[in-house]
Amino acid sequence: MMRSFNNDYSEGCHPMILEALQKDNLMQNNPYGLDRHSENASRIIKEHIKCSEADIHYLTGGTQTNLTVISSFLKPHEAVIAADSAHINVHETGAIEYTGHKVLSVRSEDGKVNPEMIESILQEHKDEHMVKPRLVYISNATELGTIYQKEELKALRACCLTHDLLLYADGARLGHALCSKRNDLTMADMAAYTDAFYIGGTKNGALLGEALVITNRKLQEDFRYLIKQKGAMLAKGWIVGIQFEMLFEGGLYYEMACHADEMAEKIIDTLRTAGYKLVSDSSTNQIFVELPDSLIEKLKEEYVFSVDKRTAEGFSSVRFVTSWATKEEDVERLINDLR
Amino acid sequence: MMRSFNNDYSEGCHPMILEALQKDNLMQNNPYGLDRHSENASRIIKEHIKCSEADIHYLTGGTQTNLTVISSFLKPHEAVIAADSAHINVHETGAIEYTGHKVLSVRSEDGKVNPEMIESILQEHKDEHMVKPRLVYISNATELGTIYQKEELKALRACCLTHDLLLYADGARLGHALCSKRNDLTMADMAAYTDAFYIGGTKNGALLGEALVITNRKLQEDFRYLIKQKGAMLAKGWIVGIQFEMLFEGGLYYEMACHADEMAEKIIDTLRTAGYKLVSDSSTNQIFVELPDSLIEKLKEEYVFSVDKRTAEGFSSVRFVTSWATKEEDVERLINDLR
Amino acid sequence: MMRSFNNDYSEGCHPMILEALQKDNLMQNNPYGLDRHSENASRIIKEHIKCSEADIHYLTGGTQTNLTVISSFLKPHEAVIAADSAHINVHETGAIEYTGHKVLSVRSEDGKVNPEMIESILQEHKDEHMVKPRLVYISNATELGTIYQKEELKALRACCLTHDLLLYADGARLGHALCSKRNDLTMADMAAYTDAFYIGGTKNGALLGEALVITNRKLQEDFRYLIKQKGAMLAKGWIVGIQFEMLFEGGLYYEMACHADEMAEKIIDTLRTAGYKLVSDSSTNQIFVELPDSLIEKLKEEYVFSVDKRTAEGFSSVRFVTSWATKEEDVERLINDLR
Amino acid sequence: MMRSFNNDYSEGCHPMILEALQKDNLMQNNPYGLDRHSENASRIIKEHIKCSEADIHYLTGGTQTNLTVISSFLKPHEAVIAADSAHINVHETGAIEYTGHKVLSVRSEDGKVNPEMIESILQEHKDEHMVKPRLVYISNATELGTIYQKEELKALRACCLTHDLLLYADGARLGHALCSKRNDLTMADMAAYTDAFYIGGTKNGALLGEALVITNRKLQEDFRYLIKQKGAMLAKGWIVGIQFEMLFEGGLYYEMACHADEMAEKIIDTLRTAGYKLVSDSSTNQIFVELPDSLIEKLKEEYVFSVDKRTAEGFSSVRFVTSWATKEEDVERLINDLR
Repeated sequence: MMRSFNNDYSEGCHPMILEALQKDNLMQNNPYGLDRHSENASRIIKEHIKCSEADIHYLTGGTQTNLTVISSFLKPHEAVIAADSAHINVHETGAIEYTGHKVLSVRSEDGKVNPEMIESILQEHKDEHMVKPRLVYISNATELGTIYQKEELKALRACCLTHDLLLYADGARLGHALCSKRNDLTMADMAAYTDAFYIGGTKNGALLGEALVITNRKLQEDFRYLIKQKGAMLAKGWIVGIQFEMLFEGGLYYEMACHADEMAEKIIDTLRTAGYKLVSDSSTNQIFVELPDSLIEKLKEEYVFSVDKRTAEGFSSVRFVTSWATKEEDVERLINDLR
Repeated sequence: MMRSFNNDYSEGCHPMILEALQKDNLMQNNPYGLDRHSENASRIIKEHIKCSEADIHYLTGGTQTNLTVISSFLKPHEAVIAADSAHINVHETGAIEYTGHKVLSVRSEDGKVNPEMIESILQEHKDEHMVKPRLVYISNATELGTIYQKEELKALRACCLTHDLLLYADGARLGHALCSKRNDLTMADMAAYTDAFYIGGTKNGALLGEALVITNRKLQEDFRYLIKQKGAMLAKGWIVGIQFEMLFEGGLYYEMACHADEMAEKIIDTLRTAGYKLVSDSSTNQIFVELPDSLIEKLKEEYVFSVDKRTAEGFSSVRFVTSWATKEEDVERLINDLR
Repeated sequence: MMRSFNNDYSEGCHPMILEALQKDNLMQNNPYGLDRHSENASRIIKEHIKCSEADIHYLTGGTQTNLTVISSFLKPHEAVIAADSAHINVHETGAIEYTGHKVLSVRSEDGKVNPEMIESILQEHKDEHMVKPRLVYISNATELGTIYQKEELKALRACCLTHDLLLYADGARLGHALCSKRNDLTMADMAAYTDAFYIGGTKNGALLGEALVITNRKLQEDFRYLIKQKGAMLAKGWIVGIQFEMLFEGGLYYEMACHADEMAEKIIDTLRTAGYKLVSDSSTNQIFVELPDSLIEKLKEEYVFSVDKRTAEGFSSVRFVTSWATKEEDVERLINDLR
Repeated sequence: MMRSFNNDYSEGCHPMILEALQKDNLMQNNPYGLDRHSENASRIIKEHIKCSEADIHYLTGGTQTNLTVISSFLKPHEAVIAADSAHINVHETGAIEYTGHKVLSVRSEDGKVNPEMIESILQEHKDEHMVKPRLVYISNATELGTIYQKEELKALRACCLTHDLLLYADGARLGHALCSKRNDLTMADMAAYTDAFYIGGTKNGALLGEALVITNRKLQEDFRYLIKQKGAMLAKGWIVGIQFEMLFEGGLYYEMACHADEMAEKIIDTLRTAGYKLVSDSSTNQIFVELPDSLIEKLKEEYVFSVDKRTAEGFSSVRFVTSWATKEEDVERLINDLR
């Protein structure tokens, strides 16, 4: 059987989550996210992020969350600033543009956005013949596996406040970011320094679901209308609520993300020692590395992973992804084969 | 404990479905609906509807399915014809309009659309100063619990072909329609006489999910792009695929719908016998009836159901809904209390 | 030669307007509406409507103005309330829906909206499963030629304030309304009792152009961005500015509208005396009347006018429109032929 | 008085055009572009471009034309390829994105798009997680004043046919392109090698208006609906029709553009001789050049022109634009001052 390092959403969910779904399965709940599980999960999360004024909504996926948030926060002529590699810029089939808004992409080697990039965009956009930049989209961890340091996030926030910009963080892999060895942020920091962010469940052991946290009071108004209009309101909303209860009642969310990061770290260390060129300075569960095509061919016989593109004669860059479900023995074997 | 006749999505899912999810939980699957379960479910359904050329996609909810379908099938100036009570016209927070299309509603007492209504709309819309009617939206069962007879569906189809209109059926409660005592349609008929329709899972025992069937070849093209763009593509798509495998491998889908219909029938018979005025001639699992306010107050102590509006001095119309999970003993008790 | 009562936009413009365009033709102006003529016209109009805080923008047509205004004022889930005969509901090819918003139409015999209609809509729209009514669209004169009395407008305004609704008036034929014998409103009243309205030029002697007046300060922000985005910002914006200077420097705007209304009044009086059934109680320049088909056929030999629909065996309703350019002799002749 | 080299739309229109408007001013015409002038203009243009099957529509501005065309031609998930400096990418306030479509910009030094750029975009966009490139947008002349050679246009066309892409040309300054000394294209070539293009009037001596030419039969269908829906259908459509009659009955369109190009050439020659660095290799009526700030300051006392940005210590790039209305004496004076 093939060992998969293809992505972090190949399995169902952590067994404890399925158990919780099972336990409650035949109980009656209020529909549309107004149930006791969703309420309880929100209570737990608000305590965890130290923000009692936050509004929390449960949606089913990242693209859906991003498009609902961004189209709700912006007026028609307002635009989003994002890294060129941002999920909304590349991998959402134009979902943001479909809601009417331009994504102003900035060239970023490491997938992160910084104040200089924002200010350069602002300088170019000065009158009504161009869109008006209004929201900065970041992801933590980024698409390249890199993470934001606390000082970086604070600087972004300050820049946004200066220029009356909103700051929104895509947390599809937020757990992996916060569990990274290099991380110095807490989830409470994410709440404190952004107007909204989401806590990704799909890529960290949930069956499906993301928890959107809106801390900016003005942006909270009528948000359930927007969720419904975008087709993002589940009739059986508690299905997601139960999962986030389980993820945050104890430390399950972080346990799973830490496992993924640790598995990745072992691989990264091996690659570094073996002298391979890491394409991105990831400290989370996605590894981007340049390998010889001959090695790639050999690895393909036993492992599933994605080959991105030819980087040089005889070399290509590949991506390995670890997850909460990655088995230590598979990592050991891969490490062996990489050496 | 209260006995709920509030809706057909208050419980999780049929235990067999959860068992199937459990069984496969730690197996690795291809993401985004390209997995073996979704493929297998589609094979089974295509056989069931006798249409090997159909394309089948799994989405998470009705509003999402409706907006993805309609915005994909229409050009910007084209409009939808629907009954005034249609879900897309009333209960989707303007989701269709958000995608840019006008819903041309026709007054319909029983929630159904007929060729005369369509032709009257066509006669009013003749030039480029008005929208161009292009798609007829029906639901079976309708929002009022009524169903289409085979002759009615055939007449609609003929009318649509004559006027180059598309026909799309919302099947949120398709199981309940097909299990109705008055029904003479098969699911294969639904496929044969429409361009697309969906088989509702959420309201008939699935945890979540709807199976969209597109039979018109020209409308199939690039549909996965549209699903992704609308935020409707689940990373773990097999979650829905597994459920539809389970629903259609044997007769589970019909068993559950038939149970709901039978429970409703008992209540309808009682109401009729007791001389209450049925607001809609439903033969499925939604019952609309006018009751004295005094009775309503008394029932509220023990049952959950929705009160729609005052209909006359001292009377209001209420809705009872039965489901796959409705217990026979609760129905017996309600019947007793209604007599 | 045929005498036309077909519409009020069959000729170019009042000769004085063309003269003004001619006079300035080779002078250099700032582009995009930031020229001295537009500024001067706005100064004159703000004085005329007694509202120094108003923002005034010049657009090229009614549909364009309506769609730019409404899509700018509303959030994605918010909807417009309008009469069923409203221009935005029937004759703009779904332009409002294209910008994403539902038009909630109310049945209105005379084309006007009143507080009862609004409140009935509000009562039906109470939660996030439906759109949120947010703006009331009226036209003065209406599509049926009727007009609002001051008390009616004040009552609408009060109702809107009570329910936090915006009030916007389409003034494609505002001149004709204000010049009606029955009118008791001033243009300053239009400014005082609405959040925005537009002064129609196209249908009252301008070559093209409408003057949009936004009095609500919060709705003024960034409006030029919206104009540009909708393709509604003319490079040579002064072309419209010059026309509105000419229309409002003296009394030209009212002179032209009064002429049209007087011509219509003569026809209406004749029709009434002759015993024909007036389909709408118009007091402006559009006349809707039921005539015998035989008479219609005879009139068609000499006059251009529109036949709306069969109203009874042997009878149809027709529309005659007068304008600033309608010749008295043509009216006399028509009157003669109608007697 | 200041001499303006600020843009090519500072004056009204060529006197002959105003005369034509005057002559017809009080004649009655059919509304909405269905008049004899528009028909006649279209007949003339179709003959001129040697394409009897073309459909021609008259709109009021470039942004409006671009957004109506692109939103009509594309399905929701389809995207436009354009140069990074393209008008639709920078200067239309996100009009294309507002209609729901992503603009995929390619880095282009000279403002032109070539097959290599297209193929590189196609290689990156291969599945449903990304938008589907479907239309190539070019402008001739480009935003940088450069033009396409016949071989370049043919190569683009071939590339588009190979990859099932549409080709659309923005002709805001098409006259200036075709009159350039380096040009080897005819307007018939523009028709032959694109699916649609527009002939700009606003920037070449018309009061307002652009003539959109759609040669691809499949894209012609229902186009008037789209024009109306976007608020782009003038009630008095003949206002634009008359102008295009006048522009193309004789050689007025080319005469005006040639004058503008000749004026520009004189300035370019002077700048070259004087050793200034031309920022773009323009051969049309827009000149981009780097000048010393000291000279810029001096020129500003007598001339109006735009300063784009600082290019080096003590130097900035500026833009001079000539037009049909540019006076030879003003050019002579500028030349003198530049030497």
